[in-house]
Amino acid sequence: MNYFDQKNDTICALSTASGLGAIAVIRISGAEAFEITNRVFTKNIAEVPSHTAHFGRIKTHEGIIIDEVLLTVLKEGKSFTGENTVEIACHGSTYIQQEILQLLILSGCRMAQPGEFTMRAFLNGKMDLSQAEAVADLIASESKKSHEIAMNQMRGGFSSELNDLREKLIHFASLVELELDFAEEDVVFADRIELEALVSEVLAYIHRLMSSFELGNAIKNGVPVAIVGAPNTGKSTLLNQLLGEERAIVSNIAGTTRDVIEETLNIEGIIFRLIDTAGIREGAEAIEAIGIEKSKEKIDQAQLVVLMSDYSENESHHEGHSTMSTNETVVWAKELQATYPTKKFIVLANKMDMRPSANDLVEEDNLKILAISAKKGLGIEEFKSWLVDQIQAGFDISQETIVTNVRHVEALEKAAFSLQQAKDGLVTQDIRQAMFHLGSITGSISTDDLLGNIFAKFCIGK
Amino acid sequence: MNYFDQKNDTICALSTASGLGAIAVIRISGAEAFEITNRVFTKNIAEVPSHTAHFGRIKTHEGIIIDEVLLTVLKEGKSFTGENTVEIACHGSTYIQQEILQLLILSGCRMAQPGEFTMRAFLNGKMDLSQAEAVADLIASESKKSHEIAMNQMRGGFSSELNDLREKLIHFASLVELELDFAEEDVVFADRIELEALVSEVLAYIHRLMSSFELGNAIKNGVPVAIVGAPNTGKSTLLNQLLGEERAIVSNIAGTTRDVIEETLNIEGIIFRLIDTAGIREGAEAIEAIGIEKSKEKIDQAQLVVLMSDYSENESHHEGHSTMSTNETVVWAKELQATYPTKKFIVLANKMDMRPSANDLVEEDNLKILAISAKKGLGIEEFKSWLVDQIQAGFDISQETIVTNVRHVEALEKAAFSLQQAKDGLVTQDIRQAMFHLGSITGSISTDDLLGNIFAKFCIGK
Repeated sequence: MNYFDQKNDTICALSTASGLGAIAVIRISGAEAFEITNRVFTKNIAEVPSHTAHFGRIKTHEGIIIDEVLLTVLKEGKSFTGENTVEIACHGSTYIQQEILQLLILSGCRMAQPGEFTMRAFLNGKMDLSQAEAVADLIASESKKSHEIAMNQMRGGFSSELNDLREKLIHFASLVELELDFAEEDVVFADRIELEALVSEVLAYIHRLMSSFELGNAIKNGVPVAIVGAPNTGKSTLLNQLLGEERAIVSNIAGTTRDVIEETLNIEGIIFRLIDTAGIREGAEAIEAIGIEKSKEKIDQAQLVVLMSDYSENESHHEGHSTMSTNETVVWAKELQATYPTKKFIVLANKMDMRPSANDLVEEDNLKILAISAKKGLGIEEFKSWLVDQIQAGFDISQETIVTNVRHVEALEKAAFSLQQAKDGLVTQDIRQAMFHLGSITGSISTDDLLGNIFAKFCIGK
Repeated sequence: MNYFDQKNDTICALSTASGLGAIAVIRISGAEAFEITNRVFTKNIAEVPSHTAHFGRIKTHEGIIIDEVLLTVLKEGKSFTGENTVEIACHGSTYIQQEILQLLILSGCRMAQPGEFTMRAFLNGKMDLSQAEAVADLIASESKKSHEIAMNQMRGGFSSELNDLREKLIHFASLVELELDFAEEDVVFADRIELEALVSEVLAYIHRLMSSFELGNAIKNGVPVAIVGAPNTGKSTLLNQLLGEERAIVSNIAGTTRDVIEETLNIEGIIFRLIDTAGIREGAEAIEAIGIEKSKEKIDQAQLVVLMSDYSENESHHEGHSTMSTNETVVWAKELQATYPTKKFIVLANKMDMRPSANDLVEEDNLKILAISAKKGLGIEEFKSWLVDQIQAGFDISQETIVTNVRHVEALEKAAFSLQQAKDGLVTQDIRQAMFHLGSITGSISTDDLLGNIFAKFCIGK
């Protein structure tokens, strides 16, 4: 079904999480929201003020009471969607939820498509497209940082920056076009050098936004981290040390749940996803016979790579006691750096408590080497800081816009390409193309297909 | 923790189902609900009218915005709990839910115990105990009938009947006591015959309520049904016929889910739970070699027992074609009736389409025999009516009070016992005892322990 065939009908959906709860909220939005509600509610809400709540009963057309509810009325222009809206807080039985929805459909509503409430908010000018997309990100956010970025985007932080850029480009294009109108008279209105500087400035800004996507994506989807190393270097001890603390920190507020799919660390609000820790968790280092070879699979998937090494004095390769010293591991790390230039590596010199001093550790230029004791918890905080620093590298999340959306980064790339061409030739057509791409982010330029794609990924009821 | 140590503090909880949704609702109730909300909300709600909704932001004490929310204010005496109440509709991310709850706790709230909102509604006189219990039943209701009974009870139907009974008994007791005051003067105020008639009337009514519990319990928890019979009598065909229709009727409204734990039939709003149909479903009748023996286990668990039989003309016991004729099954049914006098039995004479006429079927006094064709769907409606009739037997759910709560039926039993004693001896002490038990149902008499037990079974947030 095409959303756009039915922009003006009245829609309804369950807006709270599915399943049993004390209460559930059903949302109705559209021109006839009040008329339809009046058909099933024991009070007349046609004339009540906006933002008022009303206790009453939902009744079928045959007069059977389905529930006692608290119903909130939000009028056109003052609601989330911008349309007349009714929110019904009913008892949270799935039976009641279904009965009320069926009754509303019988009474003239249509079930909402995924994201249709938010799409209407966009179509009615309540928010732009990047703000609408941030609503979905906000709902999906599961860490402090991802929440912070989504909140900033939803509140229009990104949009206003893009609008600034577009205005600069509009000004630029108009100057160039004015010149073209007088081309035969050889008049020069625009200062070419100034114009080039402006395009360069905009281009540099767009590049910075593009490069923030690595951080944004990491924050939104979590940062894949591989912990690798030879047997007996202490990988499982490190993991227990990290997860043990984490477990103690995770707050378990009754009534809220959280599905754990893989082992994750939440450090300063950033989620680090530990790749394939199943083997490590079970302390099964001994059976990890293929050791380093197997590590490569994990490194392929990782953004950050933690190489464990044995820094104790009794590290050795005697028969039956296979491990790998820190020096050997540093050599290995350098090979890996050459193979994977975009990944970041750290060598952990573990078991430092079993060595009198660490004065023989030589920091390498591009390779962090850190002495720790996973067992005693020494150096763990510094290790965590390293993890966080690799991700935040150069960006200040609380001050700067961070791009988290693939669609946005693609539009920025296209805009940058057009601007680069404009810079070379100062052609207004390229400038207009760049403006088009920037506009597609906020939706000042949009197509039905684009909207359909974006909102289909939302959940029902939003 | 004892609920009653902290009746006056302000509590909060997630009231909607846990997990991800478009929105979630967090409820705050207590004397300081507005003060605490003002510490975290961007608008001052201290003086706003009751039943008004306010859009604004939830902020930490450090000024970090957690969410944009719609917040509804319900004032003392006008809310569900009877206390000052705030309902925060926030975005449905579990992260946001937890952050807001933690912030509220930091700001002076306490996490609510299960059912604590409803208990406060009871303690503040917004509803009696049987109504409060009905709130939980309403939320758990998953069929039309269980919903109807819970709704009637929540709206006070049961309570008003019990109060009528208590008033009659109070009047009775006062007459008898007056007589006792003048005992030495041998004055007779009360008409003994009239009094006895009154007690008998009350007692009969209580017995009727008690006997409704079988129906109430069946509706609330579903009716266990066993479908048994020799191999090749058509059990799996019947099951597919029944469930096939059911599947077509079950509405799948997107966004609501329903966990299927066992095969169930919803007939006229009553849930019938089919016991151990796994074997039947797989059409594995052939391997059910132990046949009738195995059936006994299922019959033990059932309230209604369906005995399948082969009514086709070619039913036979020839080698390699094991089945059981209707006549043989009727004999079996009578034996079972003798063994299980409280269960209800029906013999289905299946495969009637493979027999020219059904004129040799003789109805037995206490045994329903019904000709059907599971394959062709003949007689299925009549079979369903039989199922429903066995449960409703003599009760009109829409008119009469149906007891669904074990606690209530136990109190009724105790009241009946006391009344029986009173009837025999006309002792006011027994009457008072009966009144006490009836009062425990509505909570006009209650103890902390009793309340603790009742509300601990509620979900958090209700």
